[in-house]
Amino acid sequence: MNYKIRAIREKMKLQNIQGLIITNPLNIRYIIGIPVEGTVIINKLENIFVTDARYIEEVNNFLTINDGFIVYDSKDLNDIDYFGFFADCENVGFEENYVTFHDYQNLLRKYRIKNIEETENIIEKQRMIKDEKEIEYIEKACHITDECFTYLTNFIKIGMTEKQISLEIEKYFLEHGADGLAFETIVASGVNSSKPHAIPSDKIIRYGDPITIDFGAKYNGYCSDMTRTIFAGTISEELKNLYNFILKNQLKATKEMKDGAIAKNISRMVENEFYLNNYSLIHALGHGVGLNIHELPYISHNSQTMLKENMIVTNEPGIYMPGNYGIRIEDTIRIGKLESEVLTKSSKEIIVVDPK
Amino acid sequence: MNYKIRAIREKMKLQNIQGLIITNPLNIRYIIGIPVEGTVIINKLENIFVTDARYIEEVNNFLTINDGFIVYDSKDLNDIDYFGFFADCENVGFEENYVTFHDYQNLLRKYRIKNIEETENIIEKQRMIKDEKEIEYIEKACHITDECFTYLTNFIKIGMTEKQISLEIEKYFLEHGADGLAFETIVASGVNSSKPHAIPSDKIIRYGDPITIDFGAKYNGYCSDMTRTIFAGTISEELKNLYNFILKNQLKATKEMKDGAIAKNISRMVENEFYLNNYSLIHALGHGVGLNIHELPYISHNSQTMLKENMIVTNEPGIYMPGNYGIRIEDTIRIGKLESEVLTKSSKEIIVVDPK
Repeated sequence: MNYKIRAIREKMKLQNIQGLIITNPLNIRYIIGIPVEGTVIINKLENIFVTDARYIEEVNNFLTINDGFIVYDSKDLNDIDYFGFFADCENVGFEENYVTFHDYQNLLRKYRIKNIEETENIIEKQRMIKDEKEIEYIEKACHITDECFTYLTNFIKIGMTEKQISLEIEKYFLEHGADGLAFETIVASGVNSSKPHAIPSDKIIRYGDPITIDFGAKYNGYCSDMTRTIFAGTISEELKNLYNFILKNQLKATKEMKDGAIAKNISRMVENEFYLNNYSLIHALGHGVGLNIHELPYISHNSQTMLKENMIVTNEPGIYMPGNYGIRIEDTIRIGKLESEVLTKSSKEIIVVDPK
Repeated sequence: MNYKIRAIREKMKLQNIQGLIITNPLNIRYIIGIPVEGTVIINKLENIFVTDARYIEEVNNFLTINDGFIVYDSKDLNDIDYFGFFADCENVGFEENYVTFHDYQNLLRKYRIKNIEETENIIEKQRMIKDEKEIEYIEKACHITDECFTYLTNFIKIGMTEKQISLEIEKYFLEHGADGLAFETIVASGVNSSKPHAIPSDKIIRYGDPITIDFGAKYNGYCSDMTRTIFAGTISEELKNLYNFILKNQLKATKEMKDGAIAKNISRMVENEFYLNNYSLIHALGHGVGLNIHELPYISHNSQTMLKENMIVTNEPGIYMPGNYGIRIEDTIRIGKLESEVLTKSSKEIIVVDPK
């Protein structure tokens, strides 16, 4: 049996559930190891993967006897088979944060479940701690992102549009071994940078604009996430001061992010420092990164999570002045025992592109 | 009030619901008109959009008085406001096919809903019929896909890998005005073509391989979907016969796809013809296309939907011989009053690339 299933089974015991139904494709990818669709069914005796004609060949080729899975084509299963899977299970867990209300009702009917239990992200919590292979993929995604950033600092010129830059990022990723974008790139220049989630527009980069670039690559299904705010042609004293203020806080937060730290304490430290300077942090300080671009743990005001070695999280303080400008600095970070390792290694010095 | 909200309100009356909560981002994009996050709340008197600091500037800039929306920043709302929205509504609808079981429980608490009602895809059903602007975007997405296919027939050479081809498609889309891919491209050659949902691999295109390419672009959020199976270097008599058999069925199905036709009858016609020739159709014949790559209506064995003018659907029969090869031919089609219009206009003649 693979170690992931073993760990899930241990947690099932602690939660007193004897059966588990997993349908979230990212959880399935995590458990099975390849991106396929279907349902993972764990019961007292067996680990089962039910898929269909589209994936069955691939799954059978990929899984080995050591994975300990019985694979079925759904067309070979009937009502009685589904009733049988959990016949001797008192409590059966399901993914209440993924399954829609409609599908929840179907689960009850299809499996004739005696008592269905919310599992409170049983697998998402396990996914917080990354194994060697997962870290390797995320490091690779971060590396491609760093190289792309170096490329961008030469590529970006005054007169280009935001869209041109975001297109270039996507092309760069595709040509340098990434699966593609980890999420829709943000390129926000000048007044647009005051919107934390601006969509790249036809706005032209002008002399003096701050340019916030929030982007990440996906490699073997795993994401990276980095933001840099750079400056076109020149930087004003005002922006320089704001940049250095945010950077100071970002570095301080990175230092606090280590095994044993409580997420909310780190977020509150930055929030307080912002508050004392008449700013406010209007979004979470960070979030977990893995198969999903936003996953557990969240680093925010009320997140009780204790950080653990080999969690991968972002650290992304930003300040936004509506109608004016904004600056954000973000890294992807691997939590370590004594100190964390910044996986996105691009310079956080002030960068002025296309200087005049 | 925009016509979409008017139509939703009429359907709410028919379903005897006085309030509606919409959180599915595609439904929000459909109603609001731009890709932003938040919650659309429709009650007896008002149309409300609750969003947050990330999007509020953009939403306020985009919506006009004619849209008839009251926009709130969620941070300005408290518990009492949420209780108030539906205080005079007996029945409040929600998206049971989007909202997770966990969020469903939160909705009940947050809005103090007296009686919550499943809405059976109230908005997804409305989205089935496309308006002029939507058709224009889908036509544009189809046009980029067609031009890309023409490009590919010259680009593809024996010795290339499947991944190389799928990368080229993505780059082509990005460079020719698309938002990007409508879905993960399938490039399946030789034995891989027997898997309907194969992921592009490092397998090299060899002389004699069929190559199934299933791809689509997204333009302004709207998708296209097309499959062509082409042949590397040569085509055997056996493959030629199979190709022509599938094409004959695809054309026949296109002819039947028009206003008033019942989806399942068209699917069953193809299934029967396959069955009589010792083949079987192992997936649906087609599906709706719009903001989502797979949406209502489905064209399958048991779909009761009556096709209507300006629905956009695919028609994609395929035959797969596990361990051997497969062929699929797919178009995106606009349903018309008397006959349908094929929006993906690429040739369906047998195409042999890189002939020797």
